[in-house]
Amino acid sequence: MGKKLYHGAAWYPELWDQSVIEQDIVLMKQAGINVVRIGEFAWSNMEPTEGNIDLGFFVRMVNLLHENGIETVMCTPTPTPPIWFTHGHPERMYVNEQLQVMGHGSRQHACTNHPYFREKAAIITEHIARAIGHLPGLIGWQIDNEFKAHVSECMCGTCLAQWHTWLAERYGTIEELNDAWSAQIWSENYHSFEQVPQPGPVPFLHNSSLSTMYQLFSMEKIAQFSDEQAAIIRQFSDAPITHNSSVAFSVDNERLFRELDFASFDTYATYDHPANYLLNNDLWRNFKRGRDYWIMETSPSHAASLASYAKPHPNGYLKAEAVAAYALGAEAFCYWLWRQQRAGCEQPHGSVISTWGKPTVGFPNVLEVEQARQEIEATILATRPTQAEVAMTYSDRSKTFLKTEPHQKLNHRGLVTSFYERILHLGIHRDLIPEGAELDGYKLLFTPFLPYISEDLMTRAAAFVAEGGVWVVGPLSGGRTEEHTMHTHAALGDLEHLAGVETVYTFPMDGTGSIGNAFEVAAPLSLWSSVFEPKEAIAIGTIESGMTPGLAFLTERSYGKGKIVMLGSMPTGDAGEQLLNKLILRYADDARVHLRTDVTAGTIVAPRHGDGCEVWVVVNMDGAGGRVTLPREGVDPITGTIYPEGPLTLDRYEHKVIQFTAAK
Amino acid sequence: MGKKLYHGAAWYPELWDQSVIEQDIVLMKQAGINVVRIGEFAWSNMEPTEGNIDLGFFVRMVNLLHENGIETVMCTPTPTPPIWFTHGHPERMYVNEQLQVMGHGSRQHACTNHPYFREKAAIITEHIARAIGHLPGLIGWQIDNEFKAHVSECMCGTCLAQWHTWLAERYGTIEELNDAWSAQIWSENYHSFEQVPQPGPVPFLHNSSLSTMYQLFSMEKIAQFSDEQAAIIRQFSDAPITHNSSVAFSVDNERLFRELDFASFDTYATYDHPANYLLNNDLWRNFKRGRDYWIMETSPSHAASLASYAKPHPNGYLKAEAVAAYALGAEAFCYWLWRQQRAGCEQPHGSVISTWGKPTVGFPNVLEVEQARQEIEATILATRPTQAEVAMTYSDRSKTFLKTEPHQKLNHRGLVTSFYERILHLGIHRDLIPEGAELDGYKLLFTPFLPYISEDLMTRAAAFVAEGGVWVVGPLSGGRTEEHTMHTHAALGDLEHLAGVETVYTFPMDGTGSIGNAFEVAAPLSLWSSVFEPKEAIAIGTIESGMTPGLAFLTERSYGKGKIVMLGSMPTGDAGEQLLNKLILRYADDARVHLRTDVTAGTIVAPRHGDGCEVWVVVNMDGAGGRVTLPREGVDPITGTIYPEGPLTLDRYEHKVIQFTAAK
Amino acid sequence: MGKKLYHGAAWYPELWDQSVIEQDIVLMKQAGINVVRIGEFAWSNMEPTEGNIDLGFFVRMVNLLHENGIETVMCTPTPTPPIWFTHGHPERMYVNEQLQVMGHGSRQHACTNHPYFREKAAIITEHIARAIGHLPGLIGWQIDNEFKAHVSECMCGTCLAQWHTWLAERYGTIEELNDAWSAQIWSENYHSFEQVPQPGPVPFLHNSSLSTMYQLFSMEKIAQFSDEQAAIIRQFSDAPITHNSSVAFSVDNERLFRELDFASFDTYATYDHPANYLLNNDLWRNFKRGRDYWIMETSPSHAASLASYAKPHPNGYLKAEAVAAYALGAEAFCYWLWRQQRAGCEQPHGSVISTWGKPTVGFPNVLEVEQARQEIEATILATRPTQAEVAMTYSDRSKTFLKTEPHQKLNHRGLVTSFYERILHLGIHRDLIPEGAELDGYKLLFTPFLPYISEDLMTRAAAFVAEGGVWVVGPLSGGRTEEHTMHTHAALGDLEHLAGVETVYTFPMDGTGSIGNAFEVAAPLSLWSSVFEPKEAIAIGTIESGMTPGLAFLTERSYGKGKIVMLGSMPTGDAGEQLLNKLILRYADDARVHLRTDVTAGTIVAPRHGDGCEVWVVVNMDGAGGRVTLPREGVDPITGTIYPEGPLTLDRYEHKVIQFTAAK
Repeated sequence: MGKKLYHGAAWYPELWDQSVIEQDIVLMKQAGINVVRIGEFAWSNMEPTEGNIDLGFFVRMVNLLHENGIETVMCTPTPTPPIWFTHGHPERMYVNEQLQVMGHGSRQHACTNHPYFREKAAIITEHIARAIGHLPGLIGWQIDNEFKAHVSECMCGTCLAQWHTWLAERYGTIEELNDAWSAQIWSENYHSFEQVPQPGPVPFLHNSSLSTMYQLFSMEKIAQFSDEQAAIIRQFSDAPITHNSSVAFSVDNERLFRELDFASFDTYATYDHPANYLLNNDLWRNFKRGRDYWIMETSPSHAASLASYAKPHPNGYLKAEAVAAYALGAEAFCYWLWRQQRAGCEQPHGSVISTWGKPTVGFPNVLEVEQARQEIEATILATRPTQAEVAMTYSDRSKTFLKTEPHQKLNHRGLVTSFYERILHLGIHRDLIPEGAELDGYKLLFTPFLPYISEDLMTRAAAFVAEGGVWVVGPLSGGRTEEHTMHTHAALGDLEHLAGVETVYTFPMDGTGSIGNAFEVAAPLSLWSSVFEPKEAIAIGTIESGMTPGLAFLTERSYGKGKIVMLGSMPTGDAGEQLLNKLILRYADDARVHLRTDVTAGTIVAPRHGDGCEVWVVVNMDGAGGRVTLPREGVDPITGTIYPEGPLTLDRYEHKVIQFTAAK
Repeated sequence: MGKKLYHGAAWYPELWDQSVIEQDIVLMKQAGINVVRIGEFAWSNMEPTEGNIDLGFFVRMVNLLHENGIETVMCTPTPTPPIWFTHGHPERMYVNEQLQVMGHGSRQHACTNHPYFREKAAIITEHIARAIGHLPGLIGWQIDNEFKAHVSECMCGTCLAQWHTWLAERYGTIEELNDAWSAQIWSENYHSFEQVPQPGPVPFLHNSSLSTMYQLFSMEKIAQFSDEQAAIIRQFSDAPITHNSSVAFSVDNERLFRELDFASFDTYATYDHPANYLLNNDLWRNFKRGRDYWIMETSPSHAASLASYAKPHPNGYLKAEAVAAYALGAEAFCYWLWRQQRAGCEQPHGSVISTWGKPTVGFPNVLEVEQARQEIEATILATRPTQAEVAMTYSDRSKTFLKTEPHQKLNHRGLVTSFYERILHLGIHRDLIPEGAELDGYKLLFTPFLPYISEDLMTRAAAFVAEGGVWVVGPLSGGRTEEHTMHTHAALGDLEHLAGVETVYTFPMDGTGSIGNAFEVAAPLSLWSSVFEPKEAIAIGTIESGMTPGLAFLTERSYGKGKIVMLGSMPTGDAGEQLLNKLILRYADDARVHLRTDVTAGTIVAPRHGDGCEVWVVVNMDGAGGRVTLPREGVDPITGTIYPEGPLTLDRYEHKVIQFTAAK
Repeated sequence: MGKKLYHGAAWYPELWDQSVIEQDIVLMKQAGINVVRIGEFAWSNMEPTEGNIDLGFFVRMVNLLHENGIETVMCTPTPTPPIWFTHGHPERMYVNEQLQVMGHGSRQHACTNHPYFREKAAIITEHIARAIGHLPGLIGWQIDNEFKAHVSECMCGTCLAQWHTWLAERYGTIEELNDAWSAQIWSENYHSFEQVPQPGPVPFLHNSSLSTMYQLFSMEKIAQFSDEQAAIIRQFSDAPITHNSSVAFSVDNERLFRELDFASFDTYATYDHPANYLLNNDLWRNFKRGRDYWIMETSPSHAASLASYAKPHPNGYLKAEAVAAYALGAEAFCYWLWRQQRAGCEQPHGSVISTWGKPTVGFPNVLEVEQARQEIEATILATRPTQAEVAMTYSDRSKTFLKTEPHQKLNHRGLVTSFYERILHLGIHRDLIPEGAELDGYKLLFTPFLPYISEDLMTRAAAFVAEGGVWVVGPLSGGRTEEHTMHTHAALGDLEHLAGVETVYTFPMDGTGSIGNAFEVAAPLSLWSSVFEPKEAIAIGTIESGMTPGLAFLTERSYGKGKIVMLGSMPTGDAGEQLLNKLILRYADDARVHLRTDVTAGTIVAPRHGDGCEVWVVVNMDGAGGRVTLPREGVDPITGTIYPEGPLTLDRYEHKVIQFTAAK
């Protein structure tokens, strides 16, 4: 990897006969496909009956592709255990929260924690790694496929036993668990780990600690399975390993990618909300810092299954997506799927080639992508994405807290996306970073929607602030402990001390008539809120009406060379948007954030830098065209066109590459 | 049968004492009830304990009715197996798709495929047939009651085993099945038929072939049960046999009625959408061509259960329903139910007589029906419904395809009704015909919403076209194989060859800004669409914008003496309605369709013909009154009133019978 | 009890350490808390392992509170059986209507009918009663907590067996049951009680009798459990016993409180619909006539759980609630909860003190309550609530009929509240009374939404009318028998004879265009309706259009010195409201109802009387302020302020106490 920009597709040659395979190769070359991903559902091809393993077909495929100049990402086929694994073995199957045992015939139907599954998965993975790990066309590995996309926490007996072990490791003694969860509440407390249930059906809600911990257990176990698979592959292959994940799945992506070599995601965001797409790029770039990520799956046109379909992308959008991805740090832009499925439940899904071997409605867009890829490849390879100055914390562990405690059907992804989108629309270059990410290089850090702020994060953020950073915390951040309980010495625990505030009250502000005023904007406040009495801090935003007039919802404390800003509530409505925008800009100014342009919302600037040069890739993503002011003269490195200092306009879905001499 | 028009009701004498029974007989005669249907839920009366069968009560009832001039349709009581069958036998019960085992206390709670059910059902049926089959008052049989009204595909162990047998018979070898379903996808493929699961709980969707085939299996099995019952009855009785079915149930009506003697339906359509009611008449007339159908159940006022109620019919509507039914080919118009239930879950349901033995709010309308029946009987009996020139294909098998693949919650019945309604509102006399119906006598055939077009239908339709017919295919037709997979040589398979088009693209058009222009109307296009390049065909409708401008969504190919028209997409909105109306009228003109009037929407003309005469029964169905132009002078055969050529107007729910001398 | 007004809170000292407990006591005294409720979830504290019972902690708590002047209501802890009871014993757990077996970790997870549960519950209750029953601080008992709040009818095997016993006791023989339920319908009938199922999953609906009887069985069993607990406590303690119930739970409150000493309720009504709150007061006052009731739980601010939160009360509302409660007959006004939960699923719930030991946002309102309590205590204790002249029947048994037969998602509570609210808004002092309540002292009785009117109620109501009362029956009243079947001699059974009407038709009137005219108002009629032909009665409201013009929906019969009024339908829309208001006022006039003021809607007058005096407590409940005309001069007994005859105005949430010399 690393020497080219990849343009790829998922391919299922095991489902077609030889003539189709040959036709596909020809068409791939026409379309500019230089990498394919294969094998992730092919377990029954590789091991048609138990123990009878033959990788010959896939060896031939990798070689055939290689002979045709197409490289391969090989997958382990573990999302779809064959009938010999499942038939007659309900104890090996995934059990959902209604305690229904899954049957054969779809995918992710097996419990990934079952020892026999792990054993058979290890065997097939070793065989694949041995057979394919050294083939010249192989450039990478994908483990399994979209972990926990269709399932979340398994409730089977195997998981129950492993849950007990996990708890014993975490808490040591049952007394410690009872204490940590305050489990005496409702007489829930246990005498032994063996008694701790899974969060199955109960008349009302489960203890928050139980619910959240079971999700963390599940996330850890699936990551361990990934670790196991990776370790086996590494014995036989040097090619880097990834997994195609998503913010939508029940996984802890930070933990998952820790033991993998590069990060990938799948996205089926619809064209009418580009922020949903861009968020992935700004996040995945930071799971393996300094290493390019892959878009492993996206539709050339529209997502669909038997049960639903999305709107196809309008012409031009796919190229905008691809250019944005490459510019933001993607090494690969790959389609799901190459040839439309002729059977199963995804027949209507968008593809590059139809079941009858002809270009689909998305095909012309794929050709556009390929043309753009060729044009920008040299510039992209010669530069690296510029680290943002503004970061926003992203946490899949927070997602578990909000699943346990959704308040009013709050949705973690929706909250995060909407906060991210504000920064995006203000033309600020930004990174979404996992909780554990290093903070060096950043100037301004937002940490909203993080009910539990770990001591580690608090310590590192404090150091970041001491060195001059600005840390904006909230809303909904800090009010819960690691165990998903409440602090008992202060509403927000030690964070209050650091932030120089006392949280006087916490309560749900929706519908209370609470108006917050900051930056000369008065806006209704919403969500579960913390109301502050500034101590070492000063009030920046004050509550004007409702139940707690005179107290603060927004405070600022100078700390070392920087500032800690507490945002205790969520301004809402049009005025709330205005207030939040002013907040972001104010602290971007305070933090001396420079990586910011006046680009119009719906268009992005992706800054990159290389030896003695700076590059902007500007892409219109919303189909409405856009505009940005160039700070100085630049040049299109491909065409040589000179772009003078001043306004630059883009047409619908247009992109421009502008190279500046560095020395900014 | 055949010598009168029946006016009937469902009667449950087994639930009442003798004095009520006698009162009922008196009241029935007052109301003009000349046939009753009995026995369909009375198994526990007939066989109170297992093997202890006594039909004495029902023999007395049939005789009592006969003595009073009322004829009987006798039912088999199999929808409600008694407690001796069900208690302690969960293995005999229906299992729903959530794998819940049904309990006793409602109806359709038993698995109709369980061998012991079949055995006990055969025994009770034989006893009934022996005891009642030759009674003079008996004029017909109904098997069971509303098959699969409350249930659909059973998931019990018995069904699992029979599913395997059914598959073995269909496919011969498991390799053949794997191949037909392309079951290697997601490693679903099987080593033996015993491994093929039922479509129970899985994390995502089942293979489309599995889902659709399981529905077809279920439909075939319930039809076989009906066959079995009919065969037993025929050993002891010459009276014709039917079943009271509906388009709303999970049955294949075409298959079901194949082995029955006449077709019946139950309808609880509300008065505010008469097309829902009329559709049944135009369809059921064609399940047993040339043989009158029965309306076995309809409410004299309103449908209701403990859980819901519909609006009662306004005065006059019931008579309009009855006259329309008799005119469109019904031999009987029967109520559910005679005397209101005093217990159970249907107490609030509309009836003719109340629990306390008095006329209900619907009673005056029943008297109106009886008066009308008497007035029109001679005319109706002297004529036959005139075959329509325009037909529209109806397929319950397509219903299974759409249940498996609903795209965006598409509903087969809604789609079909809405297409049918357009033809109805244009004043065109029409037949809804099952897939296998003969096409002779038709001039114009519409085949929308038929994902799988069988070779048989295609061959017969081609012959129909060759002889001068016009066949309009689509939307949503032809894109799937018999196995619910995709064609691999052309999007619509061999249909494209016949239609002289190449399908360039298929994709969901909703929200893509695609505008189709035909007949000088430009309308937005919607639904999963096929976009054509005309080959032997010519473009009639062209796409003006969106992703595929310049290609066709509507084509026409002259073929033999007729035409094949492909409608690849669904025009929508007001303009779409206009376009579709123009399309229908245009091809009605092309096909020289004459059976068409200028009747206003909401009023119908039911044409009939007899020896040397033609009759129109005109009925206002929407309560708004209506108008139609008489092509020549006619006469009311009952009153002798002369209707001059020219406009004829009808009042709210009014009907008129007009006889023309033939020689048209 | 009885010597003070209580101001209390629920307290969970078992979840906190000693220093928090001590801090709590200090803060309680500051807040004016004079009673706490403890122990209802503390079973695992009291009996940490099976049989190892130690009440020492709670004895210490009761004593500690007493030493600090705070009295105690002690609870039995049976809603939360500990892990030693539940683990490994699915047969002891509650089973829901989907037949899911509940797990440990929430509350109400055990089947309260399981013999081992009853045995262990009796043992712990006896221990508590022995240990705490004579402590000087103990003033009352609460059995369990919110019976059937999260669950309704258990479907476990224990319940199945007890259901059979209950049926055998009710019906004697299975033939009697089959007859009462008309169970031959759908061949449902049984040979033995052992065969009668619970109303679990079936394809369609269960028999109405089965569904309703199972609910009544469940209600009787939970009441018997309450009786058992009370009998044990009474062996060891003289303190009065209650349960904290609600109209929202699946209990028969009339039956439940029959064997308890005083009645209590929990309410989390939101501030924006005060009628929801007031209804409880006007009902609970009458479960134990002449004995003050308790508000055992209400939030000082907002209800919440992990899954949802309500809007906090605006400042001032809590005091209005408390004053209204004390004035309407409450002896206690208690919060849930004192100190915010730091764990479990109710962490966000409103409380008096936060997890970190500080006043919450509701705390200032609690202080306001305490101030008001002190001010009004002498006046309240010196007087009694005045019995209303207008009563409205309330029946939890009717709730079961409407759960079985909801027509169109009708909700019993919604119907009752909305009817009650009309009387409230007309400024009429009113009582909601259980079916079995004595009718002496009332002048006007409304009995709407009572499908089954017992012979007992009919007899007593007839006597009430004979003596001069006015009884308004309907809508939805009288149409079902005790067994939830229909009458067979008249639509409304014997009620028709008493009311002097013949019900000609019953049918659902919604959407039929039926307009009823009465009191010179014409309004659309709705709901399942009875249409009358007056016999001894006269028509007061006549139907003008629709299907039954000329018949009556409202009749009046003079009977003895009074009147029986039949309201067969529900007038709806604005005109319907007007008609119903006129109806209420007309019969209030007829019945010479005096306890009525011109108070503006949103403000209430709570009349009380004592030795030679009459007191009005006027409270603005809607935050909009209000007005009432004083009939003569009064005086504020606290401040001595004179209120002259004539208009009195109140500010937002203000209350005033006005004492009149009696002699009215």
